[in-house]
Parts: sequence; C-alpha cells; structure tokens
Amino acid sequence: MKSTLVALASVCAAALVALALGGAANAQSADGPSYASTGELMRPENFREWMFVTSGLGMTYNQPAQGAPARTPNFTNVYVNPSAYRSYVKTGQWPNGTMFILEIRASTSEGSINKGGHFQTDLVVIEASVKDARGQWAYFDFGRDMKTQVNALPPTERCYACHRDNGAVDNTFVQFYPTLLDVARKMGTLKPSFTGTAAGH
Amino acid sequence: MKSTLVALASVCAAALVALALGGAANAQSADGPSYASTGELMRPENFREWMFVTSGLGMTYNQPAQGAPARTPNFTNVYVNPSAYRSYVKTGQWPNGTMFILEIRASTSEGSINKGGHFQTDLVVIEASVKDARGQWAYFDFGRDMKTQVNALPPTERCYACHRDNGAVDNTFVQFYPTLLDVARKMGTLKPSFTGTAAGH
Repeated sequence: MKSTLVALASVCAAALVALALGGAANAQSADGPSYASTGELMRPENFREWMFVTSGLGMTYNQPAQGAPARTPNFTNVYVNPSAYRSYVKTGQWPNGTMFILEIRASTSEGSINKGGHFQTDLVVIEASVKDARGQWAYFDFGRDMKTQVNALPPTERCYACHRDNGAVDNTFVQFYPTLLDVARKMGTLKPSFTGTAAGH
Repeated sequence: MKSTLVALASVCAAALVALALGGAANAQSADGPSYASTGELMRPENFREWMFVTSGLGMTYNQPAQGAPARTPNFTNVYVNPSAYRSYVKTGQWPNGTMFILEIRASTSEGSINKGGHFQTDLVVIEASVKDARGQWAYFDFGRDMKTQVNALPPTERCYACHRDNGAVDNTFVQFYPTLLDVARKMGTLKPSFTGTAAGH
C-alpha cells in the first residue's frame, strides 16, 4: 500500500515536471513511435492496449479474380496510439507522432460451440504506419517472423501512393473506421477529394 | 498550460487520497459497472476506450438452416473494462466488477476502394455482461434504441445457461479471444470441462 502511494506520487511528480518543462505536446507523444539507435522502428509490445479503431474481414482493394480458389479470410484489427486518438477526437486531424498498427489474424468458422461465421485465431503479421515528427507518413512490415525492429518500406511500395491518394483524412482510411468517420464529418476534415460512400453513411 | 498543471495536480491529489482511503482494490474498479439509483445498469459512454478483446463476423451458435436466405453478417466487437483486464492478465481469472461490452455493427463489402470481404458500418445494438460484487454474472441488452440504463435480463434467458455451461474461463467465451486464451492456458485457469479446440490452437 505504502509503496503504491510512493509510486503514484513519483509518477505524478514526474508528469508534472514533464508538463512544466516540455509542454503538453511532448508529454502526449510518450506512447508514439519509438526508434532504435539505427533508426529502425521498434515493434510496440503493448499495441493491443492502444485504442481499437475497427476490424475487417477479408478486405481487398483489388477486384477478386473470377474463378480464383476461395481462401479463408483474415481479420484485420486496427489500433492507434492513445495520445494521437485523443488529439484526433478533438480536432479530426492526426498529429505528428501518430502510429497505427494493423494486426492481421487468421480466422476459422468452427470451434467450441460456434457453427457459422468467423472468429479470430492465430497472429499472421503486424504492420504499421507512422506520421513522423516532420509530418511525413511511412509504412512498415514487421513480417511473419515478428521482427522486433524494421526500416520503413521503400517509398516506391504501393501502400504510399494508395494511402496518399485514397485516405479520407490525411493518409488514413478513416472511411473504414465508423466512429472516426463521424468525427471527421463533424470537424469538416474529410479531404475535398473524398467523395466515396463508406462505413454505412 | 497553467490550467493543465492545476488539473493534473488535482487528479493526482484525488488519486492519492482515494488510494489512501479506499485501498487499491476500490480504486481499480472505478471503470467497472455503474448503476442508477433504481438499480439499473448504466450504459458506459466510453466503452470503445476500454480494452478491445476480439471481433467476430456473423458468428452463430446455432446450426445455420439449410436453404435459409443469406443475410449480411454483423461484426461483434468485444471490450472489457481495463481494471478487470489487468487483473485477468495477471491471474487468468475475472475479478468481481468485470464488465464486458458486446458492440454489434453492421457490415458491407463495397465502399470507397474496397472490393471484397467486409468492413464495419452502423451500430446495431450494445449488450453487456457483468460479474457483480457477489461474483454473480448477469446479462444486459441496451436495445436497438440505445437505452441509457436497463435491468438485467431474466435468469431464464438462455444466455445465462449458455455462458455458464460453455464458457472456457468462468462464464466467459475466452475460447474465442486468442490472446486471453493464451493467458488462461499459461495460468491453468481453463475450466476442466472445456475440451474444445478454438482460437486456432
């Protein structure tokens, strides 16, 4: 009990000092991207404790090929760091230091008492997108071997152009995030070029 | 800036007083179930900021009827209050004051650049399960009209028996929550009666 009080007092004191010295902006980005001394992005251990944005199942941006064999679809869970989420909810815009995680998980239909539809199973891969301190977006793939740190994908990878050209807010696919789409509509931060209907509206 | 400092100082002071007076257990359950003076459970406003557990699409515990017309499936997002999550991760068991939210959302396949699979759209209904201060589970349905407070469903509703008989841990369907199933396996808290394979293991 006493040690809890001391620990809490220390945390509070540290937070007050950080706010006094660095201002709220620095304190807020403590949960953002973290880099190795080599410049590689570190894979966050606790992203499942970040803000859950949405999940999809078997989403694809390409026209499914006619006659292609059916594949078991994967779930895609999207998370964003809490300080960026709080900033977005207030402003409808993503601050520098925003970091999204895409957690891709396999699915199955039958198990335990379930008889239909799909539920989530094993982790397949983790990907990330980061808006850095200069406001530039970059994309990362930690791979099926779950690397602990990786360099950004080359800017020639099609994720860069696709997010830039099709993101409803900044370079992000808010059109697929129902509650965040509501925020963008309210704040008027949808790109003028975004005219698609999505997320049920 | 000054007001932020004052606000943080107030929060810290309040937290220290709460810990000193009530002990850590009470402080931890501040995010748990909240009841109206009539005894009805209040619908939490901020459950999307709780811990995301998993999502499913079109899951059903009944055998789908042969020849039944295809319906557009709904997503089911599961959240749990953070203090209960932290306790579960340490022990593999749900403390009194645990509260789950089931957020059911409609789905669609086509919108914006998406060409296949399913993404989430409008909110359909919110349901809840609560392990109360006596350790008893109860189930709640806030309805399609999103009531702000509701009484527990009658114990004769089949959710009670189904969760009691089929939950892999306590009365909860941890068999469908991959990361929490890992915790239960590690802590040895799966029910002896749970033998089903699920969540890809």
